[in-house]
Amino acid sequence: MKATVLVRLKPEVLDPQGDAVRRALGKLGFEGVKGVRVGKLIEIELPDAAGAGASKADLEKRLAKMADEMLANPVVEDYEIKL
Amino acid sequence: MKATVLVRLKPEVLDPQGDAVRRALGKLGFEGVKGVRVGKLIEIELPDAAGAGASKADLEKRLAKMADEMLANPVVEDYEIKL
Repeated sequence: MKATVLVRLKPEVLDPQGDAVRRALGKLGFEGVKGVRVGKLIEIELPDAAGAGASKADLEKRLAKMADEMLANPVVEDYEIKL
Repeated sequence: MKATVLVRLKPEVLDPQGDAVRRALGKLGFEGVKGVRVGKLIEIELPDAAGAGASKADLEKRLAKMADEMLANPVVEDYEIKL
């Protein structure tokens, strides 16, 4: 089964990469874009046994642990888990 | 209004970053992860006028053009637009 973790910079953290994309879009003729934020899309293929044996809550807990320990930097990033 | 563009490597393209994450998860004790793919999550803040004046189809077309021209590399990446 596949789980998705979306990692975004916290709203109060500046995103120079997003700002560069916004400016570049303007130069390409896409006017009026107010803001761009760039984050990560992490897709994790888990063994089907994890889906069959474990409850959804257990899986979410495991993925949250992965995100806290490795996938996201909790100081500057938030994450969202999608099962 | 906010639009989201998800950019993923095409399935046939190798993802060394994803493989590195998978190995690192294994070392941290998360056994059995079969695969990890890392993509981009791009959130674009459009002026509300674009939402009021333009149809959803127009907006999607505009975002697809942005993705084709700048946000994704169509040679190795696919994108998905969410409005």
